[in-house]
This record gives sequence, structure tokens and C-alpha cells, in this order.
Amino acid sequence: MINQKVCDRLAALRAVMKEKGVDWYMVPTADFHNSEYVDAYFKVREYLCNFSGSNGTLIVGQEEAGLWTDGRYFIQAERELDGTGVTLYRMQEEGVPEKEDFLAQKMEEGQTLGFDGRVVDTKFGQKLEKKLAEKHIRFTYDKDLADQVWTDRPALPCHPVMVLDEGICGKTAGEKLSMLREKLVEKKADGHFLSKLDDLMWLFNIRGNDVECNPVALSYAYVTAKECHYFIQENAVTDALRAHAAKYGITLHPYSETISWLESGLSGGKVLCDPAQVSFAFYKTIGGHAEIVDDANPTELMKAVKNPVELANMEEVFKKDSAALCKFIYWVKQNIGKMPMTELSAAQHLDWLRSQVEGFIELSFPTISAYRANAAMMHYEATEENCAVLAPEGMLLVDSGGQYLGGTTDVTRTIVLGPITEEEKKHFTAVAMGMLQLTDAKFLYGCSGRNLDILARQPMWDQNIDYKCGTGHGVGYILNVHEGPQGLRWKFVENQKEVVLEAGMDVTNEPGVYIEGSHGIRTENVMVVKNGTKNGDGQFMYFDTLTFAPIDLDAIDTSLMQPKDIERINRYHAQVREKITPYLNEEEAAWLAEATREVH
Amino acid sequence: MINQKVCDRLAALRAVMKEKGVDWYMVPTADFHNSEYVDAYFKVREYLCNFSGSNGTLIVGQEEAGLWTDGRYFIQAERELDGTGVTLYRMQEEGVPEKEDFLAQKMEEGQTLGFDGRVVDTKFGQKLEKKLAEKHIRFTYDKDLADQVWTDRPALPCHPVMVLDEGICGKTAGEKLSMLREKLVEKKADGHFLSKLDDLMWLFNIRGNDVECNPVALSYAYVTAKECHYFIQENAVTDALRAHAAKYGITLHPYSETISWLESGLSGGKVLCDPAQVSFAFYKTIGGHAEIVDDANPTELMKAVKNPVELANMEEVFKKDSAALCKFIYWVKQNIGKMPMTELSAAQHLDWLRSQVEGFIELSFPTISAYRANAAMMHYEATEENCAVLAPEGMLLVDSGGQYLGGTTDVTRTIVLGPITEEEKKHFTAVAMGMLQLTDAKFLYGCSGRNLDILARQPMWDQNIDYKCGTGHGVGYILNVHEGPQGLRWKFVENQKEVVLEAGMDVTNEPGVYIEGSHGIRTENVMVVKNGTKNGDGQFMYFDTLTFAPIDLDAIDTSLMQPKDIERINRYHAQVREKITPYLNEEEAAWLAEATREVH
Repeated sequence: MINQKVCDRLAALRAVMKEKGVDWYMVPTADFHNSEYVDAYFKVREYLCNFSGSNGTLIVGQEEAGLWTDGRYFIQAERELDGTGVTLYRMQEEGVPEKEDFLAQKMEEGQTLGFDGRVVDTKFGQKLEKKLAEKHIRFTYDKDLADQVWTDRPALPCHPVMVLDEGICGKTAGEKLSMLREKLVEKKADGHFLSKLDDLMWLFNIRGNDVECNPVALSYAYVTAKECHYFIQENAVTDALRAHAAKYGITLHPYSETISWLESGLSGGKVLCDPAQVSFAFYKTIGGHAEIVDDANPTELMKAVKNPVELANMEEVFKKDSAALCKFIYWVKQNIGKMPMTELSAAQHLDWLRSQVEGFIELSFPTISAYRANAAMMHYEATEENCAVLAPEGMLLVDSGGQYLGGTTDVTRTIVLGPITEEEKKHFTAVAMGMLQLTDAKFLYGCSGRNLDILARQPMWDQNIDYKCGTGHGVGYILNVHEGPQGLRWKFVENQKEVVLEAGMDVTNEPGVYIEGSHGIRTENVMVVKNGTKNGDGQFMYFDTLTFAPIDLDAIDTSLMQPKDIERINRYHAQVREKITPYLNEEEAAWLAEATREVH
Repeated sequence: MINQKVCDRLAALRAVMKEKGVDWYMVPTADFHNSEYVDAYFKVREYLCNFSGSNGTLIVGQEEAGLWTDGRYFIQAERELDGTGVTLYRMQEEGVPEKEDFLAQKMEEGQTLGFDGRVVDTKFGQKLEKKLAEKHIRFTYDKDLADQVWTDRPALPCHPVMVLDEGICGKTAGEKLSMLREKLVEKKADGHFLSKLDDLMWLFNIRGNDVECNPVALSYAYVTAKECHYFIQENAVTDALRAHAAKYGITLHPYSETISWLESGLSGGKVLCDPAQVSFAFYKTIGGHAEIVDDANPTELMKAVKNPVELANMEEVFKKDSAALCKFIYWVKQNIGKMPMTELSAAQHLDWLRSQVEGFIELSFPTISAYRANAAMMHYEATEENCAVLAPEGMLLVDSGGQYLGGTTDVTRTIVLGPITEEEKKHFTAVAMGMLQLTDAKFLYGCSGRNLDILARQPMWDQNIDYKCGTGHGVGYILNVHEGPQGLRWKFVENQKEVVLEAGMDVTNEPGVYIEGSHGIRTENVMVVKNGTKNGDGQFMYFDTLTFAPIDLDAIDTSLMQPKDIERINRYHAQVREKITPYLNEEEAAWLAEATREVH
């Protein structure tokens, strides 16, 4: 059956393309800041072709159109593209051309490729330029053609900015600007263009609400030794922000005038700019008016190393967040089989418990609640229409976290709801052993996550099992739950800088086992890197744990553990008991005592 | 007191420098091939300034001269340079200029720097060119001025080449040449200049005897799709080599004519050439007549992955070599305190035992025999004049290996001679645990040594102790005992390619503890990388051990070990017993049974 709505929309786009002299038009999936979540305003690709997955690029010509997506979405895309006339290109499959190769083949000498350069990755844009140079393809990237087609387009998200009490930031915006300016001197740059939203929030000690789960405001900044220009939507500006900006010499400009300001405000000199963070339109504009110094945002590393005030607040927040999770686990265990419960209703109860915690702002990501085989799917999302009913058997994986005034949390526990198999126990025990072995790591300063990852993975590798993702990622402070540049991964990536683990960096520790069609297990804590003994051999480092919730002993088989592993789980559980009991009522506390009992 | 001999030699050099228009002359320590050991012919620096350490560069001007060496040699250099007028520059100490900075400061506009470009590292030569460009310094690197000064200079080492029976090589020279030629096509190079001696020996299935402990012949090769030119000293050429060369289309040329042949034989095109292996004079010559493709020798990786024939021979050779070591340990343990024994006499007995093994050629490196605190010095060398007397107390560290027709070995055991301290036991136990944990590693294909190193180091890091060297290196096949590119190290080195551990690569596993002034412990086996289970998660890999000798149970404290560690040492010792007993006499076998007994 024809999907007339989509056909009409594509026809309208093609008409605009003709009018503007654009032969092919490309629509990726991104906002202007390479954010992890994309607001309704930016869902152009879905509007134009009906495919709603989180990753996909639509390419439209006058005669044909194609959609590129990855393996997670093949089935969904096939269904959603039905009747639209859009061809599905299954990325990474044999014989399927990459987007740039497709364009290089289809486009004719001298034709024009259009896209909104504000939502296209600089590196991909550069790749296209290189690939299409032979055919002398022209690029038009300063227009968002969807604006003319999408008549009922939602507005650009815009919420008032909150200025944080500087007491909870540990450093004032002025101090942070000074740190950044020192780095500009070091890098021999006259200015720095910042597009990464969490870096901007960190730098100015402000928070927004324009991206789901990320407390950030759509904005840009240009910082020089003397000046600081901040581009933000006028309706987001509050009196508090105006006063804050005045205090630190920050000049406010309208968000929509960023590019035109750069065109007139930049006059030569060197501008530090990270092509991985700044999108194509901005990168080209800056490159047209100044010399670009390609380097990571200096704010990235500064933000990653939490200061003592942040760490003290995080300690408190993580305890309260852990307590909410403990209450949830107790509630699930008490009520499973006694009241109706689904993946979604359970998640909703947890979200409600978190919302009751002092200082709660929002979730740090949509809670993942995955029962039995669903937990083996890395990107599983329970929905109202399609979510599993929980029963007193098997395991429920819950990955969740919150944003609080005082920190951002991220924790996973896999909860035993009833009888489980020996294999499930074996896998659960291996995951716990790996998580705790990494927690206990002592290492010399200079190590990166690549040196340590095997400590978490070893019990799984010993069974010829791997989890196809990293072991951990950095976590923001009242900011994005996924934050770089630190991480725990083992694979070598050519030309990727390795990040040394510095004291004050936080990182998740989340090994797992995922058996397709059967079960999925993940146990995740957040840890902070600390300085240990320093001697003639160097500076030794270790991890401190921030997350305190029981690792389900119903799935632990101590006969598979070494005495050291057993001692580790008992030591961790004693801490959980000590730190969390004060937050619980009598029944919950009694349950926690049992759930964290010493094992042998 | 004046060292008249050295003063006369330096005066003679200065006279030649004047005659040739050379203002400053530099003498590093290397042969023409960046070999690990340097023959008497190449000891120009020692001849000119009396400093005999293994690392040092002499720089001579008309008015002054300086010697640069590292921390290992400060005391020795001070003593040996006494009365020579040569200033000692202690490398890495504060305020001490680097060689290139010294020259940049001392040399005057337009002066000439001379050195023998055949013994200077290309990267260092390029650094000098860059550093001295401002002052328009001229370079003369085609003359070895020592030749005119050093009247009784020893001859260039030259021994007849042995052509290996191709049955023990697994691949013929023709097959290897084909593999190399395929790589040239892949790298888009017309030819390849090879200077690395062990790569040359591997490629042609020949061996020489021109470098101490390395069974290599001084030579160069230039290989193209159709031609192969081999430059070797005429007196090294045997009838067998002539026949072998004819069989595989290898044209022989005199060694001394390499540069002149390159000057006339190269005419444009692209030449693959590794600047880390080809010295400055050759690199410049090639660069002057062709375009250089900077890349590692393709032979390096091919040689590192041992083929099934090599692996089968190595298995046999390692067993015999291990048996010689077992006989030695038995002999030491039986005779300590009963007969006079020194570090040196013990080493000599071990060397003799090895020489009795079938197929023995020579030692693979000078045996290290270090008693008690001497073992804590990484570069300790026992000498006739200055070696410790062994007594029935403390520990003796012995690191040794042999070259055999069928493999090259490298093994370290630390042997208990009598009472030792609890701390020594604790350290010895940690070293054994680390060594065996790494031996037992299971890992996914794609891992490099950087991912695995922590498995060996963990028990030491847990005690805030580190060993300041890598955990392991590759080992040649009837070739150099230190062979790349694989290795086990944890530190990140910018711009250094990481080498994936491939099935068939061999690598040593040698963690240690070194406590200055007290004791040194190292336990070293050689392992081979093998393919294990392959499943949806990838190709799992593991190590097979080649070395079988007891880990001294007199220094093992099982109360510090986990059951898994105890099981590992028992499992290893059972293999030692099974594999080595057939090579021992009755008394030795009885001792081995006891030395490899099961512990609890």
C-alpha cells in the first residue's frame, strides 16, 4: 500500500530542491550539537520518510530516495518504509554501498548536493567533499529545506537557563574561563569556538533543559583572551543569567545569529576548534575567516576530572540514588507474583522512587527495564504496546540513573525474580567477579582504560564469552550520563588518543553477559579514580566506588569463586549495608541485611 | 694523571678533521645494522676516549670533547674518562644539554659536522639536520675518520655463511621472497632495501656469525619484483651460498659496494625502507635516487609469526634446553656450600651443560648470573675480577639461553641457595602468580601486549611494587633472542603501532621484583600464541608454554596464593615433570619429582 503522506512530503521536498537548484538532498539524524538525544524539531528524517529509529540518513534525488541505517533497525525500517518508495540500504551488509559511494556513483558531473550543514558531522562532510571532488559536485549546506516543507514543524526547544549556585560547582565560571584561557595560550590559539553543550554548561556553571535527559541549553560560545561571546536563544535568557554573564564579562548574543557573527566577528588569527564536536557549517565558516587549530576542547578534560566539591556532593547523591534503587529492588522482590507487574510498570515505580529523592531534577536517561531474553538485546526499549509481563522466574535487568543538584547517576542491577538456571548463575557470578576485580584494581599512573579493561572481562573470556561493548564510560556532574574522554575499553583504535586515568575522573564499571534469546546480565557501579601510594616506582592509583546496591546473592554461586572474589563481594556488601541502611525503613533495612549477608 | 694514549689518539683525530675540513666529529656506538651487540671493529668510541660502556656518544671539536652516556654508566665513565680531557655529559640529568642542543650551541655558522653515516640512526641524523639548519651547518657523513687514526684496528668480522637445510625452515627462500614481493605490490613499492640482519637471515634461510650471540652475517639486500641483490663480504660466501643464491635468483655483490651500487642501480621509483632500521648514510643515498616509502620491513611480521615446522622444532629444542637448565639447578642445589662456586663459575657450568645439547650453536646472549643484591641491578654483569661468591643462603638469579639448530631459547629462574627472608618469599610468590596468570590468559583476537600486561603485573602492583621494564619480548628462530614487533608492555607510546598478538608469535613472560641493595627475582618462560575457540563473539586466543623448569618451591608461600594460583603452579609443574624427566638421570629425576611436587 502506498504511504501517501510520505509520498506527498517527498514530492514537496523535490519541488523545493528544484527551485533551489539542489539535485540531491541529504538528511542525517542529529541536532546542531551532536547530542546523544534528538529533539522533535530535529526529526526531519522521520518526517520525510516515516523511519523513526535513532540512527538513519535519508538521501533524496528527483527519481529515487534511499535510507541508510544499521543492523539494529533493519526490520523496523523495512516496516516503516513500506509504501514510501524509499529504498532501504542495510549498512555494513555485503554489496550495500556507503552513502558517499552511492552519491559518487549517482551524481552527475557538476550537480549540486544539499544538506543542512549545521546537522552534518565535519569529518563526514570533509569525506564527501573529497569523494565528490572528481565530479566537481557543488555543495549547498546553508539551507534547511525541510523548513519549507514541514509546515507544522515543532519549535526549536527553548527553556529558561538555570544558573547553578557556585557553591555546588567547586569553581566559579570566572575560574573556569581562566583555566580555558591558559590552555589557549598553551595551544597558541587566539580564540576557541565551543559547540559541545555539556562543555558549555560546565564552563559557565549553568544548566538547561533543551535535550532529553541532558540538562543543557542549545548554545555556542566563542572565547578569546579578553572576550567571551555566548550565543543562546533569547527566551532562554533569565535575569539571573544576565547578571551572571555581566559578572564574568560574558556578552550574550542571539543563538540564531551565531554564524553571521562568526562571519563578521572573526578576522584572521587562530581558532581552536574540535572537528569531532563542531558541525560542518560552523567548521567551514570559521575556516573561511581564520586558521583552524584542530584539537579537542580543553574543557573536555577539565570537566572530566571532578573537583573536591563535586566529588563530595556526588558521594551524597549516589548514596541517596542507591537507596532509591535498593527500595525498588525490595519492592520488586516483595511484590513479584503478588501484583501485576510489567517491565514498564516496574520502571515507572523506580522512576517515581527517584523523583522523591531530594534534589532530583530528571532521569539521566530513559530507564531500561528488560526481562529475561529482552535483556540480551543491547538497545531494548520496553513500550506501552509491547512490553513483557514480569513473573516470579528468571531475571530483570534494570539500568537507570538520575540528574540531581549534586550529581548524575548511572547504575545497573540484574534482579532475580524467581528460579533461574545454573547457566544464568554461572554467568551472573562471572559478571560480579569481573566487576569487583576491576573495582579492586591497583595500577600505576599512566594507565588508560585499555590497560585495565581485561580485569573486568577476564571471567567472561575464560568462558569464551565476550560483551560487545566497552566496560565503562565517564559520567558528567549534573550533566550528560555519557561523558568523555575517559573510558574503559580494550580495542585499539588507530589515531585515537588514549586518555590516562587521572585522579578525580569517574567511570562506570559495567561488564555483562548477553545470550541471545535467553538472558542478559549486567552489573554496573560508578567509580572514582584516586591517588594511592607514591614511591620510587611511581604514583599508584585505585578506584573508590560511589554506587551501593546489593549484587543479587540469589544468582551468586560461590563454588565458582576464589576466596578473594568472595572476600570482595562480602566487603562490598558490608559497605552497602553501612551506607544505605540509614535511608531505609525497618522492613527494607531487614531485607537489605539479608540481601548483603556474608557468603562463604 | 694524564691519559697520554687517549690524548694522542684525539690529537691524531683532530689532525685528520682539520685536513678534511671537519670542525666537529661525532662517534656513536653502533654497527652498520643497528645490532644489539657491537663487534670490536666498531668500538671506535672506546678506542678514542677509553669509555667502554655499551652506550655512549663521543663528540670532538678542536678545543674540547664530550661523552654522552646514561645513568647506568656515570660512575664507570667518570673513572674511564679520567685524564683524557673528555667532559662527561650525564644524560637526562638536569641542566645537561642533549647532543643536538650542544652542537647547535657550540657550532658556528657554516661549520661542518662529520660522522660515519653508516653507524648513525636515520631519525637522529634527521633531527640533527633540522636542529642545525638555522646555522647552515654542512654534513660530511661518508667518511669514517677513525680508519686513518686507528692503526691497529681489528678487521671487520667475517665468517662463512651457513645455508640452513630448508627442511628446518618450514618455507624455502623462494617462498619467502614471493611473500615479500606480494607485500611490495600491496605497499605500492618498486623495491625494498633491507639492512636488518635477522630479517635478511630469515628471508634467505641462511645464518652467519658476525655479531656476538646473533647468528647473522653482515649484509644488505635490495629486492624488486624480478631481482634480488645481496651484498655480502666476499670471504663469507661459500659454495653452498653460491648454489643457493643461483637457485633463487639472488645476485651476489661485495658488501663494501652497497652504497655505490645503490647510487648507480636505483633509478627513480619507490623504495620501501624502514628509517628505524636503515642507517643515515643508506637512507640518504636511497632518498637521493628514489622516492622512499617509509614503513616497517614486511619481513618483520612474517618472521615473528613462526610456521608449523619452526614451532615443532622449537618445542623439541625448548625441552632439551629446559632439561639443561634443570640439570644446572640440581647441580647448584647439590653442591652449594660443598664446593667453591661464584656467579661466574656457576654460569660457566650452565653454559657447558647447554653446549652438550644436540644441535647447540652458541649462547643466545651472555648468561646473567646475579647473586642476592646483584640481581636487583638490571644490567649486572659478573666478571672474572668482580663477581660474588655463592653461599648456601639467599637467591641466585640466572637468565640464559642458547642458539640451536631448531630454535633460540631464553629462560630465567631464581634459585634458592639457602635461607631466605619472608619478604623474599612474598615477592617470589607474587612473581610466580603474575607469570602464571598471564600464561593462563584467554583473550580475543585483536589484543596486543598492552591489554594483557597487567595480568603479569597485578600481584606486584597490588603490593605497590613495579618492575621498570616490559613483561616480555618476541624471540627469534635460530636468530636474535630479542625480536619484534610483538611484545608485552603496558605503557602507551605515541605514534607507536600496536602489534596484535597473532597465532604463531612467541613471546617471553618475565615479570620480576627488584629491591635495590637487597634482592632481585625474575621468572621467565617463553610462550606461543595459539588460536582457541572461535564463536559469535570472535576468535579466542591463548598461550602455550615452551619452557619447562621448576619454579623454586622453597620460595613459594602458598598462604599468599588463591586456590587458582596453586592449581596453576601444580599444573605447570606436572608438565615440567612429564616433559623433562626423560632427559634426566635417576638422581636428577628424583630431585625433579621433589622440586615439582604438588603443593597445597
